[in-house]
Amino acid sequence: MKAEIISIGDEILIGQINNTNSVWIAQQLTLMGIHVVHMSSVSDEENAIVQAFDQALLRSKLVFITGGLGPTKDDLTKKTFANYFKVPLVMNGEVLDVVHSFFTKRGRELTEINRQQALVPEGSEVIMNYKGTAPGMWMRKNDCIFISMPGVPYEMKAMMTETILPKIKAEFKLPSIYHKTVLTNGIGESMLAELIEDWENSLSAEGLKLAYLPQPGMVRLRISAFGADLEDLKNKVEKQILSLKALIPEYIFGMETFGEEPLNLQHIVLNLLLERKESLSIAESCTGGYLASLITSIPGASQVFSGGLVPYANEAKHKLLGVELSIFDTVGAVSKECVVALARNVREKFNSTYGIGISGIAGPGGGTEEKPVGLVWIAVADKNKVIPIQLQFGDIRQNNIVMSSNAALNLLRKFILKQK
Amino acid sequence: MKAEIISIGDEILIGQINNTNSVWIAQQLTLMGIHVVHMSSVSDEENAIVQAFDQALLRSKLVFITGGLGPTKDDLTKKTFANYFKVPLVMNGEVLDVVHSFFTKRGRELTEINRQQALVPEGSEVIMNYKGTAPGMWMRKNDCIFISMPGVPYEMKAMMTETILPKIKAEFKLPSIYHKTVLTNGIGESMLAELIEDWENSLSAEGLKLAYLPQPGMVRLRISAFGADLEDLKNKVEKQILSLKALIPEYIFGMETFGEEPLNLQHIVLNLLLERKESLSIAESCTGGYLASLITSIPGASQVFSGGLVPYANEAKHKLLGVELSIFDTVGAVSKECVVALARNVREKFNSTYGIGISGIAGPGGGTEEKPVGLVWIAVADKNKVIPIQLQFGDIRQNNIVMSSNAALNLLRKFILKQK
Repeated sequence: MKAEIISIGDEILIGQINNTNSVWIAQQLTLMGIHVVHMSSVSDEENAIVQAFDQALLRSKLVFITGGLGPTKDDLTKKTFANYFKVPLVMNGEVLDVVHSFFTKRGRELTEINRQQALVPEGSEVIMNYKGTAPGMWMRKNDCIFISMPGVPYEMKAMMTETILPKIKAEFKLPSIYHKTVLTNGIGESMLAELIEDWENSLSAEGLKLAYLPQPGMVRLRISAFGADLEDLKNKVEKQILSLKALIPEYIFGMETFGEEPLNLQHIVLNLLLERKESLSIAESCTGGYLASLITSIPGASQVFSGGLVPYANEAKHKLLGVELSIFDTVGAVSKECVVALARNVREKFNSTYGIGISGIAGPGGGTEEKPVGLVWIAVADKNKVIPIQLQFGDIRQNNIVMSSNAALNLLRKFILKQK
Repeated sequence: MKAEIISIGDEILIGQINNTNSVWIAQQLTLMGIHVVHMSSVSDEENAIVQAFDQALLRSKLVFITGGLGPTKDDLTKKTFANYFKVPLVMNGEVLDVVHSFFTKRGRELTEINRQQALVPEGSEVIMNYKGTAPGMWMRKNDCIFISMPGVPYEMKAMMTETILPKIKAEFKLPSIYHKTVLTNGIGESMLAELIEDWENSLSAEGLKLAYLPQPGMVRLRISAFGADLEDLKNKVEKQILSLKALIPEYIFGMETFGEEPLNLQHIVLNLLLERKESLSIAESCTGGYLASLITSIPGASQVFSGGLVPYANEAKHKLLGVELSIFDTVGAVSKECVVALARNVREKFNSTYGIGISGIAGPGGGTEEKPVGLVWIAVADKNKVIPIQLQFGDIRQNNIVMSSNAALNLLRKFILKQK
């Protein structure tokens, strides 16, 4: 089945925002075995939108449209939609209730502009938006289905995941499909590709597809099988994953099954701690609170996360975490000695099972010949032992922060698993 | 002058790569006053490419094409190009020399496949590629110019900057253009739209365009002017911005001039602190390190950021930050009393000019009738005074974290500016 994606909004055409919505929708459709044949971005102008609709009608069975559904004047997708389908806009009671409760919950008054959010083209099936106020719409023209969604990414994603994708699965006979993603950490894309070259070749012999999905701090390897019999596809993929596990055990830290919540290292570590009823505290200097924010982004983190410290200045490392002043004068703050003290002392301070200490040079400035930008020391401690490691990343500040945080989580994961 | 951008490649359509080329090209063209009216991504298939060319011909004077120029079999842009212009591919000596030296420099042999990189459609102007092996091409059909470039970002960018954009400037008389974006915080898109309705109407009377660009925690308002005289456009836009500032002074926290680095609240606050040689420390509970990570993501943060604490558990709030145990028993951790103590005590602990305290219920669990999910208390303190505020956000954990952090930065910004 062929699909296409239309993004509406001048902000895309002037390059002010990166169109991540199209990327995400394309990923979801591809994973379901739907063939995305075209993507386009058009202006907030009725003519441009109608032209895109006309062309989509000739090419695709499913047309996904994002953007142009807000309450303000530059948004005219809904009006264009109604004109295109030659129907009036009518007030939808269910949507009006949602919009109404959205505003009253926040102690705000419902204005006339807000009420208009509940207008939908007559005859459209409404896709409820529980994260915002603009509803989605599902309309049929000839043999083609047009699905209009808001451009706000988390509203669009919630609609897709909760309503639209299940509806498509229910209405159409799609090919069977099985995906599984292997999560690796501690090795780059090209080195990984060399290590697993033979294994990768054996995949295509079985009709399986492999995708490398690199991101700072990890490379995800997605193995996909398309065909008739799901059980058969699953067996093929799982067999290959077993071979891969035997090949690179030290780099694999988890698996992601498609359709489940994407797993990151922070989820894996949090689950390990929850299972064991253990707790964690963090003293992070160069990552500046990012590691704590990764962990606390997960609901329920408060059950295992005792707390964190961002001792950015040396004075704070000394006064709050008992790092001896002599360390700064001899080996410096970016050193084994410093992170060992941070990990041990933060653990004691918060009375947690484990403590993490991180100190490094995030960049872009602050590097020396001896200690270049990207140098990071990390330590994990429990009450009996402490393991420090040294890593060297590149010169991009944000990447160094992300990669150091991931490396710390992976060190903790290994620490937890090996000791028991 | 109207332009459009076509990206060729299945890797875009399956969502495997984010199409940053189009964003970058759109930015460059917009800055030159060229109006990008359409963007599309099509498959590596002759039919799809030809269809995109045909439509572009009707719409635009300049068509920028990226991708599909590599030496491997799935790349057929060049062949399609030659067919479309009804000319043969011919060997270009100058390109062949570049390709040849590219390989010999790297100690590699020139294969037949590599030699074919030097084939170009007869009659095309070649755009030399000094960063790689695939040349760019500039061809005219009817009144429209097609410019084909490789998909590798740094090869494409070098061609654009060094050759293509100067060539366009030399050949065409371009209009002037001026954009400026006003950054607002603390008000939603629809309430803002009502507040500034009259002002917005006066914009169109002057031929200016307004775009609302909402994101969690802020709404950006972009005002654009197109015309003959840049100074005139600039005056028009700046005059309107003055009226807007008078209309909603309490919500505006900054300005973004198009083409400059995008500004966020954390940049603005950091700059204020740097100018004043003042410092900041943070005790953040429900934001879990996110606020510290926003500030420390900026190079040079160490000059003003003394450090942070994430006292997630009440025990940590008490032991590390001196929050009286009686507070938890009476008004609870999400209270004015708690954040006032956090802000004051973190400031003292780190000996910084300002202290921020945050405590709230990020959700999705943990809410009660009296203290629902999304309730957040924030306080800012210096050595003389402390200002606490209470806010009520929604029920999405990540948004609550982002919005609370932005609100804290904005409270600090106002605190700093009003006291002097």
